[in-house]
Amino acid sequence: MTTADALDALPTPALILDEALMLRNVARLRGHLGSLGVALRPHLKTVKSVEAARRLLTDGNGPATVSTLKEAEAFSAAGVRDILYAVGIAPRKLGRVLALRSTGCDLGVVLDSPEQAAAVAEASRRAGDAVPALIEIDCDGHRSGLRPDDPAVIDIGRILEQGGATLRGVVTHAGESYGAVGSEALAAFAERERLAAVTAAAALRAAGLPCPVVSVGSTPTAHFARDLTGVTEVRAGVFALFDLVMAGIGVCSIDDIALSVLTTVIGHRRDRGWIIVDAGWMALSRDRGTAKQAVDQGYGVVCDVGGRVLGGLIVTEANQEHGIVAVRPGSAATLPELPVGTLLRILPNHACATAAQFDGYAVLPDGASQSIAHWPRFRGW
Amino acid sequence: MTTADALDALPTPALILDEALMLRNVARLRGHLGSLGVALRPHLKTVKSVEAARRLLTDGNGPATVSTLKEAEAFSAAGVRDILYAVGIAPRKLGRVLALRSTGCDLGVVLDSPEQAAAVAEASRRAGDAVPALIEIDCDGHRSGLRPDDPAVIDIGRILEQGGATLRGVVTHAGESYGAVGSEALAAFAERERLAAVTAAAALRAAGLPCPVVSVGSTPTAHFARDLTGVTEVRAGVFALFDLVMAGIGVCSIDDIALSVLTTVIGHRRDRGWIIVDAGWMALSRDRGTAKQAVDQGYGVVCDVGGRVLGGLIVTEANQEHGIVAVRPGSAATLPELPVGTLLRILPNHACATAAQFDGYAVLPDGASQSIAHWPRFRGW
Repeated sequence: MTTADALDALPTPALILDEALMLRNVARLRGHLGSLGVALRPHLKTVKSVEAARRLLTDGNGPATVSTLKEAEAFSAAGVRDILYAVGIAPRKLGRVLALRSTGCDLGVVLDSPEQAAAVAEASRRAGDAVPALIEIDCDGHRSGLRPDDPAVIDIGRILEQGGATLRGVVTHAGESYGAVGSEALAAFAERERLAAVTAAAALRAAGLPCPVVSVGSTPTAHFARDLTGVTEVRAGVFALFDLVMAGIGVCSIDDIALSVLTTVIGHRRDRGWIIVDAGWMALSRDRGTAKQAVDQGYGVVCDVGGRVLGGLIVTEANQEHGIVAVRPGSAATLPELPVGTLLRILPNHACATAAQFDGYAVLPDGASQSIAHWPRFRGW
Repeated sequence: MTTADALDALPTPALILDEALMLRNVARLRGHLGSLGVALRPHLKTVKSVEAARRLLTDGNGPATVSTLKEAEAFSAAGVRDILYAVGIAPRKLGRVLALRSTGCDLGVVLDSPEQAAAVAEASRRAGDAVPALIEIDCDGHRSGLRPDDPAVIDIGRILEQGGATLRGVVTHAGESYGAVGSEALAAFAERERLAAVTAAAALRAAGLPCPVVSVGSTPTAHFARDLTGVTEVRAGVFALFDLVMAGIGVCSIDDIALSVLTTVIGHRRDRGWIIVDAGWMALSRDRGTAKQAVDQGYGVVCDVGGRVLGGLIVTEANQEHGIVAVRPGSAATLPELPVGTLLRILPNHACATAAQFDGYAVLPDGASQSIAHWPRFRGW
């Protein structure tokens, strides 16, 4: 069975995963980090699928990073028992953290304030379970975290250690690296991550506090780090699937993108140069991450059903269940004749956002004799 | 129990529906259309919930509009038996259309090309079931559809009627009305819808073809239409919940918005004037519909847990599971002290997109003795 035949049986829109490309992407990052002697702790917020996660995790069961307690609970139930919940902990969520830990899952939390540390310490004492916490360090002004030299880093460490919790280490994320382009700029962001994390770790240790884990990471910095001395682990999520935003900053090529949305042509507006497809923003998401990049890819790059890019064609506009395919502004390409019923595939701006619009992946057959596998995704909080 | 107490028991982020506001919004549009003597065919793509749909539909069971066959199947199973699937039909979807019709659901389809009409006619003949089809008319250059005077309108009508299908009428949607502001501009768009639809209907009738249904609608035009002579029904979806985009063009006020996202404060960056909350784009969606409006509301307007707007505060940036709350650029407001753990509610740019990020609604208690109800949503295709 050809890929086109296999896809022809799917309702559209559908989320297509090219497993062979995903495995190649995973091997690439593992190889790079292996050469630097640092462990990979994949962020599972991108795939949100047990079957996909097994292919990302080092031994199939961990270590892992998650963005919601729902992910922690779902992956823990599937056997992943070393999990970092990498969003600042709200005290009201500690009951669920403790409940999951009581099943034997080594779930750690992240925080950046004395108030949160006091809440984690109090919950630890009450439960008789020293919850491990990592202090979030800000390396680039992106979002949360303390500057590495902020005295509050030491204060928080003491509150945790003296209050009955566990200070497990420090964690940072160069979110601003998504706006950098090219290997030099991305390597510089990787060094900012490393320097911020090891500086904070050194400050904790100098104050007599433990800091076994020094965790950094984002997909761009993970691929371009040249030296990770002092770092114990790297987190990354979108690296497994890639997307147009990552291609736009030079982390991957368009040929590496393992995720696409299968869609059907449902109409034409020849007077306007438009082809109407049944993938709108409900399928593609409203993410327009490439809008700020040198090449704006609209709501996605258009490929034929076999995954070959149709030069010059992008999704220029999206309504809820309608996408408008047209020639990219400024392109000399001509609109091909694509009759009603033609199947196309759209490469997404942002894999995390597009995948989240679907309940599962249709996994491309790897050989001639295989059929399409279905890997369920979960969502929610 | 107060609203705050009831909400305090929910995990965050959560999707909050104020049923009393929704019922007021539904009554408003029903009253307006009733005064014009035209039926309402609510578009259920916004609510995607059987419980909510019952409160929108005229008799609780129809008529209805949907944007996916999944919606048609789910609502039909719940007893809604008069449904218009208002996205151009792909021939490969006709099997599901016929299967649902064979259960007794009066499901109609939409098309705008002779190719689609021939496919519907052929499927009708094969099944011995004259599928009803409406011809999509373009009234404002927004997306799909034929101009009302396009000779293809008549061709399509003949292909349907002579080929074994049913020509049920014409349908149009002024998608560009979302970019108009104020009652005069919106009334003008409503008249464009009406004129396009009745012109096409007249052309069909002059050619000896039937046109029992003349269907128009969008939430903006539905509220500001002054005369709907010749129109038989109006479609609208977001009218029941409203959102910041609708408030921005003057269709509703912010106080009418029945949908919000409950979120918890998880951190601060006082040096930057930021409050970090646990509603990122996964909860709020990436929709930034107000970015093109006079007042850019970021990723949403921030309210206290009781739903009162906190003047000057919006969500200025969103990552997957983090939102950044800050004072709106240019505002003289000061950032209030909102400790870690504080519950807030965010009003969305676009109700359809934000609601789609959740598996259900937490419905606010209407009186002191009631608890929060949970209404499941569905999704997919």
